[in-house]
Amino acid sequence: MSLLSGQYVIGVDLGGTKIYTALAGEDGRILAELKIPTGTEKGLQNVVDGIVDSVEQVCKTAEADPGAVSTLALGAPGPLDTKGGIIHYAPNLRWRNIPIRQILEERIGISVLLDNDANLAALGEHVFGAGRGVANMVYITVSTGVGGGLILDGKLYRGFTDEAGEIGHMTIQPYGPLCSCGNRGCLEAVASGTAIAREARDLVARGAGQVILVAAEGDPGKIDAAVVASAAAGGDPEAVSIITGAAGSLGIGIANILNLLNPSLVILGGGVMETGALIWEEVKKEVRNRALDAAWTVARLVPAELGGRAGVMGAIALALDRE
Amino acid sequence: MSLLSGQYVIGVDLGGTKIYTALAGEDGRILAELKIPTGTEKGLQNVVDGIVDSVEQVCKTAEADPGAVSTLALGAPGPLDTKGGIIHYAPNLRWRNIPIRQILEERIGISVLLDNDANLAALGEHVFGAGRGVANMVYITVSTGVGGGLILDGKLYRGFTDEAGEIGHMTIQPYGPLCSCGNRGCLEAVASGTAIAREARDLVARGAGQVILVAAEGDPGKIDAAVVASAAAGGDPEAVSIITGAAGSLGIGIANILNLLNPSLVILGGGVMETGALIWEEVKKEVRNRALDAAWTVARLVPAELGGRAGVMGAIALALDRE
Repeated sequence: MSLLSGQYVIGVDLGGTKIYTALAGEDGRILAELKIPTGTEKGLQNVVDGIVDSVEQVCKTAEADPGAVSTLALGAPGPLDTKGGIIHYAPNLRWRNIPIRQILEERIGISVLLDNDANLAALGEHVFGAGRGVANMVYITVSTGVGGGLILDGKLYRGFTDEAGEIGHMTIQPYGPLCSCGNRGCLEAVASGTAIAREARDLVARGAGQVILVAAEGDPGKIDAAVVASAAAGGDPEAVSIITGAAGSLGIGIANILNLLNPSLVILGGGVMETGALIWEEVKKEVRNRALDAAWTVARLVPAELGGRAGVMGAIALALDRE
Repeated sequence: MSLLSGQYVIGVDLGGTKIYTALAGEDGRILAELKIPTGTEKGLQNVVDGIVDSVEQVCKTAEADPGAVSTLALGAPGPLDTKGGIIHYAPNLRWRNIPIRQILEERIGISVLLDNDANLAALGEHVFGAGRGVANMVYITVSTGVGGGLILDGKLYRGFTDEAGEIGHMTIQPYGPLCSCGNRGCLEAVASGTAIAREARDLVARGAGQVILVAAEGDPGKIDAAVVASAAAGGDPEAVSIITGAAGSLGIGIANILNLLNPSLVILGGGVMETGALIWEEVKKEVRNRALDAAWTVARLVPAELGGRAGVMGAIALALDRE
């Protein structure tokens, strides 16, 4: 299909393991997309080449004139500076103070926008997913880590220095397990997929958790949140306790957000939220227990709709100036 | 002084114990003010009469023509509906679903605005106090309870149903003391003046806390946050431990807010924050420990400037449409 006269935008979701690039029309519909390995270990130049090649490739696939692409928006892990277009620090890319916007603008010759990947996922769900038409919503993704983004009074809320939305680093258990950020008891340290798997492996290492071990085909290395959730779904009390604990912590975090921000919608995505009904039931129970009635009664908790596409769809929304 | 040709606004801060009314000019400067007892026990009509009388009185004091008052803004405890002008539920006024805006507009004959008292205190500090010119700021008051308000991207943030800013009901200790809201371990239940006094009284009831008891002139009924803080300032380890514990909880709550909202300013007011240097030092230490570096390094923690006037000044700001 040829749309030579049309205007296009490109969204790029830059992660530690893959670069996800999509070309979209003015309505936001994806016309072509491509995922390639990030190749961080080969250095910055290689990652930039990967983005540039991906852009050419999606244009070619969609038979779109690269000259008709108005804007490229890039979602990347923070901390970063959206106005300056600089990624300050991205441990999983091994980058420090990379002026990625300038680099890409010089290579591709079009306007480039940079934003935080979790913020863009929130924006994606807001514009194209479960949060369409909702002015006050919170997006939380629970997978390896816990991240999120805020849409407040109809706009993506970034904070003073683009650092807002770090939901995963809310303290839930003041004396809880150490988090990668150095703090103790962060939501990410007690409710992420990594935390769930760690707890189950600790059980197994102590000679307990045998049902979980069987669900992992006898290999402790295969224990992840999905394995624990499947054992829990089968009624294993140890697995139920781990999932319930993580859900309870998530519920505390969400209740805190309801009390503080009074959204009408909380969108929950990420692999951990896809492990079954138990985690949803327990999250809702804890939120209802903890949140003020006036905040709880007006807030719905719903699953994300865009899955792994949320970030790239958010980048497309940003490029289309639909924040 | 007569300003017959000028335009005036009136701010009213309606609390459980007092009605605080102030008349201001277009520049927000207070020209006359009055505090009277709320008299809740005498019923709704009496409270309304008190507000109407106060309005007449401040006009008289300032020699202002009541016909030149454009707007009255009323701050009241929530939950309430700012658009409908209805106070849904105010336990300390014993009110349920009172259409206070309509009642006052009919009695006074001018435009009336209603908003949450803590939100208006935040707005007061934003427009006239420690947060002048600051687009992303959080106001927290720590006194009998813990309340607050949010200014985000330059505007008062109210949430979907005017319930935002309930900082006092953030869970800090999941299995902590019961809060008046029914939840456990809320910030208010572990760090308010009431919580500090309760902890000290519990100590004394167990036969400990003798230095605190002396500071309270031997009367456990006189133990409050100021008494505990003065014993702590004198080096009493039990008092230091109570203040440090409350400050640590406050620090966790503030760190959570920095990570979530990335403000450039946190304004701390209320009697507990005026008890001395120890609580400030300990709050800052905990925030630095808990908040992400990127959020902590850009955020200042400063004392409120308006004291007990914050709410009425915020009402004036609202009446002047300076939210």
